[in-house]
Amino acid sequence: LLAKQPAKGTKLPIYMGEVGPVWAYPDYQLDCVVADPKKGSKMYGLKSYIEYQVTPTTTNKPVNHRYKHFDWLYERLLDKYGSAIPIPSLPDKQVTGRFEEEFIKMRMERLQGWMSRMCRHPVVSSSEDWKTGKRKAEKDETVGVMVFATIEPEGLQDLDMIEVEQKCEQFSRFTKAMDDGVKDLLTIGNEHWKRCTGPLPKEYQRIGKAFQNLSAVFTTSGYEGEATLTDAMTAAGKTYEEIAQMVAEQPKKDLHFLMETNNEYKGLLGCFPDTIGVHKAAIEKVKEGDKLVAASKITSSEKTGMAKRASTMSYSLQAEMNHFHSNRIYDYNRVMQQYLEEQVKFYEKIAEKLRQAHSQFTTM
Amino acid sequence: LLAKQPAKGTKLPIYMGEVGPVWAYPDYQLDCVVADPKKGSKMYGLKSYIEYQVTPTTTNKPVNHRYKHFDWLYERLLDKYGSAIPIPSLPDKQVTGRFEEEFIKMRMERLQGWMSRMCRHPVVSSSEDWKTGKRKAEKDETVGVMVFATIEPEGLQDLDMIEVEQKCEQFSRFTKAMDDGVKDLLTIGNEHWKRCTGPLPKEYQRIGKAFQNLSAVFTTSGYEGEATLTDAMTAAGKTYEEIAQMVAEQPKKDLHFLMETNNEYKGLLGCFPDTIGVHKAAIEKVKEGDKLVAASKITSSEKTGMAKRASTMSYSLQAEMNHFHSNRIYDYNRVMQQYLEEQVKFYEKIAEKLRQAHSQFTTM
Repeated sequence: LLAKQPAKGTKLPIYMGEVGPVWAYPDYQLDCVVADPKKGSKMYGLKSYIEYQVTPTTTNKPVNHRYKHFDWLYERLLDKYGSAIPIPSLPDKQVTGRFEEEFIKMRMERLQGWMSRMCRHPVVSSSEDWKTGKRKAEKDETVGVMVFATIEPEGLQDLDMIEVEQKCEQFSRFTKAMDDGVKDLLTIGNEHWKRCTGPLPKEYQRIGKAFQNLSAVFTTSGYEGEATLTDAMTAAGKTYEEIAQMVAEQPKKDLHFLMETNNEYKGLLGCFPDTIGVHKAAIEKVKEGDKLVAASKITSSEKTGMAKRASTMSYSLQAEMNHFHSNRIYDYNRVMQQYLEEQVKFYEKIAEKLRQAHSQFTTM
Repeated sequence: LLAKQPAKGTKLPIYMGEVGPVWAYPDYQLDCVVADPKKGSKMYGLKSYIEYQVTPTTTNKPVNHRYKHFDWLYERLLDKYGSAIPIPSLPDKQVTGRFEEEFIKMRMERLQGWMSRMCRHPVVSSSEDWKTGKRKAEKDETVGVMVFATIEPEGLQDLDMIEVEQKCEQFSRFTKAMDDGVKDLLTIGNEHWKRCTGPLPKEYQRIGKAFQNLSAVFTTSGYEGEATLTDAMTAAGKTYEEIAQMVAEQPKKDLHFLMETNNEYKGLLGCFPDTIGVHKAAIEKVKEGDKLVAASKITSSEKTGMAKRASTMSYSLQAEMNHFHSNRIYDYNRVMQQYLEEQVKFYEKIAEKLRQAHSQFTTM
């Protein structure tokens, strides 16, 4: 907090927007498409790995990257911005089964989600790390809390400590509460997923089989003219078997995205306690400032500098929270819509199937 | 089998219909409406009972009857027709909880089902027991296998024993197979009922609560302009709670009737082994006939008489099976239609509710 301003490096401006302090957003939104996973090998086939094609929308030139390259980028971003900005972890590193198609698809989807989120961030996306070489980036001294020295609340008054503290408390409460809510939804979603892919379709299948079995018995009656009934009952039975299939496949179409989004947010929210912790520590330091001045441990102007830097940190946190909120509103609006849309389609399709099955019976 | 023809009593004619031997069906279909259960008491309130209002469509005059009156009728019909016609048991006698509303409603429904089935039967419905007093009915000697003596296959040739045996085998196989199928469906239906009224709605409720909780957290963000999202998420959450309610109440609307019908058939099918047993025994007797004639235990004309009576029994069984099949086709066609219709309504209503919930989100 008493560190000197770094000599080099670009400044990260914060403006006053409609919702409060905001980062400066770039005119052009960077994005990267992660696609086309391919198995590569080196050392004459001794080592195998998966390479993903990463295409930035700026250059449109695909570059192949392995998981460890993403990991390198993650570590860099965490070192550089971690104190001010929640940098979510990459999808879990996994050793077994990592060449299985299902797993590769899932990891690619999650790497894509991570990349898009990083690209969407105005500070992270403007980072030099995307362009500069590995060696230069690793020499970068602007790491840890140094990042705050590069942040410049443009034309904004210094905040008083009471306001800084209140904001910090509010964010802390909110992120904690949202973390609980998200984890709760994930738990319930997981259970629902299990039911939808396990016992529920099994039950529909058994209902379907029971109708078909009874219909098969009916055909052995020797009684004339019940083919309409037995055909209709068989069709109804098959319909329930199809419904079983639909039920089992549905979570991939709707619950999946709801779960992935909430998983991403769980990751993001998990970073906030650290970020907020840095702020709380700074606030405490400033509070001790008066005593330190009285004890002549620091000068009065050093104390003023500390308060100014804490104010900058608070602007940074507020800008970050506003970025978080705006993304959250966008993401949840989108994922809830998608979930409900797919759910509507699902129930409509079942109703339609059953309507068809119903129409095969004769009205007596 | 060697019994004398009873002197008195009306004859039960069997004709050759399109589907084979059939009972003579009355021009007017008797039916009884069981309704309006009322608690009665006697011995100055020491004994309580439930009285049902039974109204025959013929007289349209309601008469109050207790369960034990139905039971008396059941016993009479079983004594008189049990060898030829499956007389299904009454709904279980129950001691505890018999004054609870739910139970009374269920018993009334089942007594109604039993009455309607008995009224639908051309032989049973033409029985004098419906009209004659208790004392006279109990003097009736036409009980047990005597009923066959009153059956008259009009203008129909005697069947040969091979055909009689084949028919008997076929009916035995069919009723056994249907019994298995019905029991299977009942088992699955019971499990489905439990799931639909237990864990499944609980899960939808929890999903609904999770959406509402997350929405409530969002409202504490302090971020401007997310009311559209939080309102929509709360509405979506409430929708899932409503769906939970619908899921829990649905079995009463559809599965219930499917289960009741299958329960009725389970009862009916349970009577067939006895009915068929009587026939098998008669067939065996006729087969022994030649030996008995050789041993001069019976006369040749007595043996012819036995064969004739076995033929009559077979006509009776065939008429009964044809009655059973025609009812079965009608009942299953109706109940399957009803089930599917209610299922369609159910899924359509869910889709509609979710469509409404979806429409509250803004497209970004």
